[in-house]
Amino acid sequence: MCDSFDHLSMVGIQDVIDAHRRIRDYVLWTPVMTSSTIDRMIDCQVFFKCENFQRAGAFKFRGALNTVSQLTEEERNRGVITHSSGNHAQALALAASLTGIKATIVMPKNSPKVKVDATRGYGAEIVFCENSTESRVQVAQELMQTHGYVLVHPYNDARIIAGAGTAALEMIDEVEELDYLFAPIGGGGLVSGSAIVAKSLLPDSNVVAVEPKNADDAFRSFRDGKIYPSVYPDTIADGLRTQLGDLTFRIIREHVDSIITVSEEEIVNAMRLLWERMKLVVEPSGAVSLSGLLNMKDELDDKRVGVIISGGNVDLTKFFKQIS
Amino acid sequence: MCDSFDHLSMVGIQDVIDAHRRIRDYVLWTPVMTSSTIDRMIDCQVFFKCENFQRAGAFKFRGALNTVSQLTEEERNRGVITHSSGNHAQALALAASLTGIKATIVMPKNSPKVKVDATRGYGAEIVFCENSTESRVQVAQELMQTHGYVLVHPYNDARIIAGAGTAALEMIDEVEELDYLFAPIGGGGLVSGSAIVAKSLLPDSNVVAVEPKNADDAFRSFRDGKIYPSVYPDTIADGLRTQLGDLTFRIIREHVDSIITVSEEEIVNAMRLLWERMKLVVEPSGAVSLSGLLNMKDELDDKRVGVIISGGNVDLTKFFKQIS
Repeated sequence: MCDSFDHLSMVGIQDVIDAHRRIRDYVLWTPVMTSSTIDRMIDCQVFFKCENFQRAGAFKFRGALNTVSQLTEEERNRGVITHSSGNHAQALALAASLTGIKATIVMPKNSPKVKVDATRGYGAEIVFCENSTESRVQVAQELMQTHGYVLVHPYNDARIIAGAGTAALEMIDEVEELDYLFAPIGGGGLVSGSAIVAKSLLPDSNVVAVEPKNADDAFRSFRDGKIYPSVYPDTIADGLRTQLGDLTFRIIREHVDSIITVSEEEIVNAMRLLWERMKLVVEPSGAVSLSGLLNMKDELDDKRVGVIISGGNVDLTKFFKQIS
Repeated sequence: MCDSFDHLSMVGIQDVIDAHRRIRDYVLWTPVMTSSTIDRMIDCQVFFKCENFQRAGAFKFRGALNTVSQLTEEERNRGVITHSSGNHAQALALAASLTGIKATIVMPKNSPKVKVDATRGYGAEIVFCENSTESRVQVAQELMQTHGYVLVHPYNDARIIAGAGTAALEMIDEVEELDYLFAPIGGGGLVSGSAIVAKSLLPDSNVVAVEPKNADDAFRSFRDGKIYPSVYPDTIADGLRTQLGDLTFRIIREHVDSIITVSEEEIVNAMRLLWERMKLVVEPSGAVSLSGLLNMKDELDDKRVGVIISGGNVDLTKFFKQIS
């Protein structure tokens, strides 16, 4: 993803509150759910903020809508673009369609049909590219140059981060006290927004970002104080393969207490718990925070722990072929 | 299932209200969820009462707890028994464990391991039998004679029906007005309880029971005015293979407006909608009401429609083997 953006300013709690005021009539105030089974397993009280129920299936819609809502008239007329085969594509397509803006999404030609259909279903124009990051960036840049489209970055943008933070804002409004807040980390947008909110409203809370071991660039970046690229990440958590941006990295260094990593097996186990015990369809990236929590079990005795379930977009084609 | 029970009296709204008072501190007040996608598909407003989130994964816990809570001291000391490999087994095991009563569950020896483990996990003793209805009944009766266990029938019991009705009671308390209420029908406990509530609180509402075409004994019984047995039902909706009891049949004839049937393909399609669009893990029986609603689309323009999602217990072993 190319890193050119205009909004490199720092983000604060007021930006998140403003974002929420801007988007609240269009986003779902997603439920906070609990599970006595999981509480018993970990000996603490866990509150799951279920962004898998969010419109377009993930928290990404919050940031996308907060961003397109703030475009100038001139930018709106130009239309927006992004390159992604993931949740940001669907989120931007829906946000643009709701605000009457043309959206163009550059997708690798091997993208799953279900994602292409969903993005197109929200009214976006899809332009296919080769299956490499270089091709995605190049095709998007060509389109921006030709048509003047405005790039909406998936995470390294103050408006996206403020929007992402509104999920934690709603959760804390509802559950009030939290000792810990867990969120998954990929590019860092969700965890940045969540940490700004947690540290402002609950200064004593502990913010933990959880990352797949097989894509541990954020863990190493945080440890060594410099951004590492995400090279050949091989994880089932497809939403967390991206690397940090300079803005998200700055916020994370300031507000996040620790980044921990989890194995692929731990991710699948957590996902299965959420499906079997809580009856929630959660994507692998969305289950990563719970794996972290299970890993840190010993520290969490009797604590109140918030967990952000980031999304629920899983390709179920094979499963339904098998049962029908 | 043997049909000997003590509670053949008719059930009224006051019984459901009393049941709710009795169980409300132990059952989850499950959320009512909505989906703008599904509303747009059907051109009406649909409210999903999500009993897949109920403890032990289905509405069955309501009736089981309402029943064991009313046992006499002498009956409590004897312990309870049922024969089932389904949701009633888990529900009774949990209800008995919460009220300090011994539960024995007779299960066919080919029951899925995940169900056996769950039932045992709630503290019940499992006794295996051969894989026929005859063997289940026979083994249960022998155990009742030897140990004096009290049989808790899965549906043909006024206490079970009143408990099942508490889901509709909560839903109507929350959404207030409904033109239609859809529930799946197998033995008829859920639809009996729901119809009693709907017809008492919203006399103009229309109660529709939905049944798999491949297990249409209730449809035929309702049409012809006599109970047909369920012979070799071949449906993916394993919770709906049972036949009506005399008590549920009487209530259904009095309060239910129509019984409609749906194909296996329609059940799977509705299930997929719930998983993909609403991110809800719903079992096939739980998706049956939505298939009925999709079938009756033309009648439902601009209506307010309540749908009871009865449960979410699906064996996900294969799915997780495939992804990990």
